Amino acid sequence: MFSFEVLSASSDTRARCGIIKTERGDIETPIFMPVGTAGSVKAVSVEELKDCGAAIILGNTYHLYLRPGMDVVNVFGGLHDFMKWDRPILTDSGGFQFFSLAKLAKFTEEGVAFQSHIDGSRHFFSPEKSVEIQLSLDSDIIMCLDECLPYPADHKAAKKGLELTTRWASRCRTFWSENRKRDNALFGIVQGGMFPDLRKESAMQLGELDFPGYAIGGLSVGEPKNTMLEMADHTIPLLPYDKPKYIMGVGTPEDLVDLVGLGADMFDCVMPTRNARNGKLFTSFGAVNISNACHTLDNSPVDENCGCYTCRNYSRSYLRHLYKSRELMAYRLNTIHNLHYYLNLMKEIRSAIREDRYDAFRKEFYAKRS
Amino acid sequence: MFSFEVLSASSDTRARCGIIKTERGDIETPIFMPVGTAGSVKAVSVEELKDCGAAIILGNTYHLYLRPGMDVVNVFGGLHDFMKWDRPILTDSGGFQFFSLAKLAKFTEEGVAFQSHIDGSRHFFSPEKSVEIQLSLDSDIIMCLDECLPYPADHKAAKKGLELTTRWASRCRTFWSENRKRDNALFGIVQGGMFPDLRKESAMQLGELDFPGYAIGGLSVGEPKNTMLEMADHTIPLLPYDKPKYIMGVGTPEDLVDLVGLGADMFDCVMPTRNARNGKLFTSFGAVNISNACHTLDNSPVDENCGCYTCRNYSRSYLRHLYKSRELMAYRLNTIHNLHYYLNLMKEIRSAIREDRYDAFRKEFYAKRS
Repeated sequence: MFSFEVLSASSDTRARCGIIKTERGDIETPIFMPVGTAGSVKAVSVEELKDCGAAIILGNTYHLYLRPGMDVVNVFGGLHDFMKWDRPILTDSGGFQFFSLAKLAKFTEEGVAFQSHIDGSRHFFSPEKSVEIQLSLDSDIIMCLDECLPYPADHKAAKKGLELTTRWASRCRTFWSENRKRDNALFGIVQGGMFPDLRKESAMQLGELDFPGYAIGGLSVGEPKNTMLEMADHTIPLLPYDKPKYIMGVGTPEDLVDLVGLGADMFDCVMPTRNARNGKLFTSFGAVNISNACHTLDNSPVDENCGCYTCRNYSRSYLRHLYKSRELMAYRLNTIHNLHYYLNLMKEIRSAIREDRYDAFRKEFYAKRS
Repeated sequence: MFSFEVLSASSDTRARCGIIKTERGDIETPIFMPVGTAGSVKAVSVEELKDCGAAIILGNTYHLYLRPGMDVVNVFGGLHDFMKWDRPILTDSGGFQFFSLAKLAKFTEEGVAFQSHIDGSRHFFSPEKSVEIQLSLDSDIIMCLDECLPYPADHKAAKKGLELTTRWASRCRTFWSENRKRDNALFGIVQGGMFPDLRKESAMQLGELDFPGYAIGGLSVGEPKNTMLEMADHTIPLLPYDKPKYIMGVGTPEDLVDLVGLGADMFDCVMPTRNARNGKLFTSFGAVNISNACHTLDNSPVDENCGCYTCRNYSRSYLRHLYKSRELMAYRLNTIHNLHYYLNLMKEIRSAIREDRYDAFRKEFYAKRS
């Protein structure tokens, strides 16, 4: 049975450690989920993901539905066997891509009409259709279809969006209850723009629907960082304590450390993988731009204290050369390092919470970077 | 001590099995050398190269000299530590790149003046300079600087080219003998265009210089396949039997099977790696274009009988999806398959020679493809 349990809680912050149990394995929280948009976490193998410590990855329903398409995934009985990842997968609903990527997305009560960003073909997602696709992907954690608003949005639009999101969440819940064949989870997504009263309204309405888990959506859409943190700070305590809370699409290492302190349990973001492909590497002492000339003759690893495959084997000099030469190995080695950094950070976060020194950990984390 | 020994020879063809011994390990011949142009065999790690059975790889002196540059490689005492490949490396001399890639290459008695294809900067390679760079790369097999002619070239130009190549070979040999600090090998390169008399002249002149090994250059430059095979057939027996013979830049699996039958011992070619990045996969039953629609729903591997990582784990359907989506994993998985195919083919070739059934092996190889 899908379950979540809080195992230890920080005494001076809202940080907590827990465990999500799924049919495909346990996930210690707080957790970061690498993004595998189209059936592959870009540039890395499933073995490398496991070596980096990934317990769960994210797949994008919008992308997978368009390419390869459900006829292909159905041949394999779902996404796991197609991409040979046997640990849990969380799939998003498509809601964020209708906001960020699809062409001419038109939201009505019934659902979203949109055109593919790949070939302009026309499609329609109802809340039921989104869940149906996610069930076919055999996802372990399914997300409700939501309406994500641009920033800034006015109060009226944000209210309209959250209320539609609640009605869709209810339809998703019904469809999921009646159609799932395996034990998996459905998460509701809180919307409400940057308005505390609307975030509260959304959290209350979704709370009544009693989801196995909750996400906070509509953050990291262009708002100032303080606003993002304020919204999370305000919203997290409004959601049931004993359910996992997932902050969607966030963020920097600093964001993760801050949000865990506010009670967040789950994260996903393209930042470690995308930045890797742009030569930006994360370390405990801040970011390293591997293309900088200062690394040309530097035979030391990116981070002396890092235990990843890349740092154990390769120098800054070599990584810079690969990156400048656009060698494909550059993207792999950089991605391994960044994912290891993110996943190791979550591991350190969990240790700090278990040992009830999260506030000290957070201060130390920031001190190392300044 | 660098050495080569013929261990078994086919009774009905000129194929032979041998062993090249180097300070960095033994190489069973006939062998295929994956091309690691700029300090990386594109898309694959050194561990994957070893898993595919690579005993030696090739590095390009021209590319490495321009980028990262010798100041960088010198920090690591050579190419091996820079790229973390601890098995033998053969480096070419730059001769082929002056022919194929560099801008405004100007050949004089002294050497070659050229402009970088990367930034247009001006450089000069003498035969001595080419060997000096290869010694700094700490290459295990060093190639003499040669003049490679375009196809077609007239008899006069080809004669002039081979004679310059011989004079340069002599200079390379002197410089190498006086400056090498470690046990490595220097190979002479036979030129002479598509003229049997000139190939003979070149082979005789180089034979007198007594190199540890010999290459046949200036093939696969646009001539018909039969001409290439005729030139190899004519030239190989003119070179010392007890020295390894390397056919540069060739070729298809068919070329390799044919050339081994003519007495060739070593090969390099970008074909398995480049074709992989273009979705063209090699199999015992011919080429597979992974982007073809027929693979869309095909959950079988590229080759049921292939033992490579890609075929053991992934379907044609998934590989097609990755390729169509331009996922970086497509290039890796395809490259692993193609390199495994080439290196496994060489393994089968060696077995067939050892069991003295090379002619039968060759017929069977062709029968499977038709």
